[in-house]
Amino acid sequence: MISWNNLDTLNSYKELEKINKVSVKEVMSGEEGAKRAKEYVVPMAEGMSYNYAAKAVNEEVLQGLEKLAKEAALTEKFEALYNGEVINTGEKRLVLHQLTRGQLGNDVVAEGVNKRKFYTGEQKKIADFANKVHKGEITNAKGEKFTTVVQIGIGGSDLGPRAIYLALENWAKKTGNFKMEAKFISNVDPDDAAAVLASVDVAHSIFVLVSKSGTTLETLTNESFVKDALKNAGLDASKHMIAVTSETSPLAKSSDYLAAFFMDDYIGGRFSSCSAVGGAILSLAFGPDVFARFLAGAAEEDKLATNSNLRKNPAMLDALIGVYERNVLGYDCTAVLPYSQALSRFPAHLQQADMESNGKSVNRFGEPVNYKTGPVIFGEPGTNGQHSFYQLLHQGTDIIPLQFIGFKNSQIGTDVNIQGSTSQQKLCANVAAQIVAFACGKDDENNNKKFEGNRPSSIIIGDQLTPESMGALLSHFENKIMFQGFVWNVNSFDQEGVQLGKVLAKKVLAHETDGALKVYSDLLNI
Amino acid sequence: MISWNNLDTLNSYKELEKINKVSVKEVMSGEEGAKRAKEYVVPMAEGMSYNYAAKAVNEEVLQGLEKLAKEAALTEKFEALYNGEVINTGEKRLVLHQLTRGQLGNDVVAEGVNKRKFYTGEQKKIADFANKVHKGEITNAKGEKFTTVVQIGIGGSDLGPRAIYLALENWAKKTGNFKMEAKFISNVDPDDAAAVLASVDVAHSIFVLVSKSGTTLETLTNESFVKDALKNAGLDASKHMIAVTSETSPLAKSSDYLAAFFMDDYIGGRFSSCSAVGGAILSLAFGPDVFARFLAGAAEEDKLATNSNLRKNPAMLDALIGVYERNVLGYDCTAVLPYSQALSRFPAHLQQADMESNGKSVNRFGEPVNYKTGPVIFGEPGTNGQHSFYQLLHQGTDIIPLQFIGFKNSQIGTDVNIQGSTSQQKLCANVAAQIVAFACGKDDENNNKKFEGNRPSSIIIGDQLTPESMGALLSHFENKIMFQGFVWNVNSFDQEGVQLGKVLAKKVLAHETDGALKVYSDLLNI
Repeated sequence: MISWNNLDTLNSYKELEKINKVSVKEVMSGEEGAKRAKEYVVPMAEGMSYNYAAKAVNEEVLQGLEKLAKEAALTEKFEALYNGEVINTGEKRLVLHQLTRGQLGNDVVAEGVNKRKFYTGEQKKIADFANKVHKGEITNAKGEKFTTVVQIGIGGSDLGPRAIYLALENWAKKTGNFKMEAKFISNVDPDDAAAVLASVDVAHSIFVLVSKSGTTLETLTNESFVKDALKNAGLDASKHMIAVTSETSPLAKSSDYLAAFFMDDYIGGRFSSCSAVGGAILSLAFGPDVFARFLAGAAEEDKLATNSNLRKNPAMLDALIGVYERNVLGYDCTAVLPYSQALSRFPAHLQQADMESNGKSVNRFGEPVNYKTGPVIFGEPGTNGQHSFYQLLHQGTDIIPLQFIGFKNSQIGTDVNIQGSTSQQKLCANVAAQIVAFACGKDDENNNKKFEGNRPSSIIIGDQLTPESMGALLSHFENKIMFQGFVWNVNSFDQEGVQLGKVLAKKVLAHETDGALKVYSDLLNI
Repeated sequence: MISWNNLDTLNSYKELEKINKVSVKEVMSGEEGAKRAKEYVVPMAEGMSYNYAAKAVNEEVLQGLEKLAKEAALTEKFEALYNGEVINTGEKRLVLHQLTRGQLGNDVVAEGVNKRKFYTGEQKKIADFANKVHKGEITNAKGEKFTTVVQIGIGGSDLGPRAIYLALENWAKKTGNFKMEAKFISNVDPDDAAAVLASVDVAHSIFVLVSKSGTTLETLTNESFVKDALKNAGLDASKHMIAVTSETSPLAKSSDYLAAFFMDDYIGGRFSSCSAVGGAILSLAFGPDVFARFLAGAAEEDKLATNSNLRKNPAMLDALIGVYERNVLGYDCTAVLPYSQALSRFPAHLQQADMESNGKSVNRFGEPVNYKTGPVIFGEPGTNGQHSFYQLLHQGTDIIPLQFIGFKNSQIGTDVNIQGSTSQQKLCANVAAQIVAFACGKDDENNNKKFEGNRPSSIIIGDQLTPESMGALLSHFENKIMFQGFVWNVNSFDQEGVQLGKVLAKKVLAHETDGALKVYSDLLNI
């Protein structure tokens, strides 16, 4: 029987607080630094690795984290999750997103359905559909091929699929796997839908409407927006639209859609990129084989997360170091800094995945916790960030832990040699330099030019950003977030904090307001 | 004579710390909340307003902030700045970005040049050049019109101009002011330049190379990348490229460019959107008249910032409330949340403008300060953010002050009526609802559905996002950052924190490394 306890009740946590703090500056200097950079490494899937040499940990802290992992029963909790226990207790739901890409444990049967078979069945349906679209067997009313796919969805139905599409777009073009351009409509701001629609050829566009419940107001509004545009172009909207939803939703069996593909309540929105939510658009854009490769990378990384040996479990180790930074060292934010332009929107996806999962003040039993939980997550690609907010990261009054990501090779392969090095070498040289600059700093007689150092960072290094490594990256961070939620004893899989705004917005639209809300409604001309 | 003192030496600051804290929840409830929402408002330029009703201030705190503004001599310091004193003391430079859009005080003459005349002269040169491009008087070698403009620049040469381009693109298309599409190459990642080049018709593209010093390695590398592409297409690069730089830079008089437009050392990169850095690309994309309207909006807002009456100076008030939140209330981040898809990259620009300016640990004399300075800035457009990280903002363990921006009208004007309201009304209803949800919260027997409230926010409300209101917004935040820098007694106009990474990256590329840096270089295959 697993017991769920608050972090501050664990003996291992109390011990951890007492361990002497590590000076990153000290341990990353000289030969010790070189030794750590070689040895503080955990292999990941697809030849990638998680390097935590520049984190504020040493053997003693790591042993403390091992004890914490054991006392918090992280491996057992993950086992319970993937074997189908009701881990999302608030909503009384299983948590099965890993099952979309592999099966780590027992068969999971819910409502009489083998869920692995259900998810792979939907993948098969999507693959068949996408192949028919690519072959010109499913076309517009004139029998012409679709050339563009447009996702209509918000939050988890937008950020993850969009980040992954952008991550693989250039790779797909380079490798001959590019089938269709993808676009995204998310915001209820009418200018979002209008601008996207103006940028595509609607007669040759297929739209993917994504809403698990089938009731997301922003998404249904944008669906109407798109339907109007299709009608105005003299087109039959039902021949241009597919739905991704749950089987019980009003969208599931509607004749408004060419086809419907299903997910279920056991896949949270922010964890849905590997379900039909990401599957439909990514299979249409890049082909089902590429999507399958992406899933395979995620599945391979998931397996590493089952390892109870912390030193061999990159997601669990990353998670525990993060908890140590948040709760023992008292750092409030984490910056995600991919040295890869293709990952430009991956930080925005992780911002949702992390902050919506662990931005909670009550434990899984609804009791207030007395410690900090999820940090603020933000980030932009390096080297752009270097010319932007890195000033504060280097010399500001707060220490912000950093999560770098870098690849040895670019995706497109076109490059230029200037001052004796390629752009790709410059990119990689910059991330290497930043790790050491943040860790070791630099002394100077002029305080303004002095760098205190002692800014902790980790880096995930891969050969190239491919479907497999993208899948592995996604899995890594999803599992990191899950483990942190276990340690903080929060339910990482609900999001009650989004409800109040929805309720009040409905009141505003119904003109049922008073007090300040009425004044703001008037000021905004509603 | 102005005296520059640390915040914690000011009596008014010590008094401020002693004032009873305001419960946002209490004061925003009922009739008092309605009264505040109407009265805690400062007019801005272009009919906009800054509403701070939902901030943790009351009459007593505001009077405390007034004393602080006076004791810190904020108005006098701004006067000194716009009258041409050496405010960027570290680099011994004037700070003149406001002068690109208006003249607030005396003539500023440096090195024998009237700087207002210099900046407006460059604007005139750019306007003439852009008009000739639009009329087809300046063309490619075949005499064909240019259809696309591509900015090559990083940091301040990228984020601001890109954010403003995106902010006005749809407005320009709707109002007949759209002249050319603009694209941006910034990252040294070779996939950035390669992907942008693959997306444009290079034969009809004009490139704007932006580097004040003419030595920014990322930018020069990308220039070579572009020149290679032009050569490979059989084109003469010098007929497709203009430079924006300083008069003393190696780019200034080169025959490699069709034309060169100048800025100078008195315009910091992150404050350069109103100089030739933003002027060239925005004038080419939308026409010089639109750029002039943008400058006019910024100039109008600048004037408001000269007002020594805090209650009538939106930038100064926003700045001081921010300092109060950072130093007295102890909040570490600020989220910028525009309810406007067109402002999708404005938070990224403000992230640089703010964090690079005030992310400092030493005062303007190089002495370490004993208080927190610039916060972490992040944000995404609402309503997207609501379906992402708002969970943490509502129910997380840290309080994050919020800066909303909303407009009564959309830019494109196409809309759809669903469930009795338009998309624009839904957008506005959401931001109104969020302000009150964050402020007042909601009680619930179930702690998981409980909202503590007391989350402070402000909102800037405008009629529509136009060139003028975009200029005013930019000015507001630039001046806010400047005033905060004055209060913290830091030099907001240098960025020594970016140097160490550059130095170490050069060492890596020259293979002059040892220790951890050598190991990382090897791991990344450099």
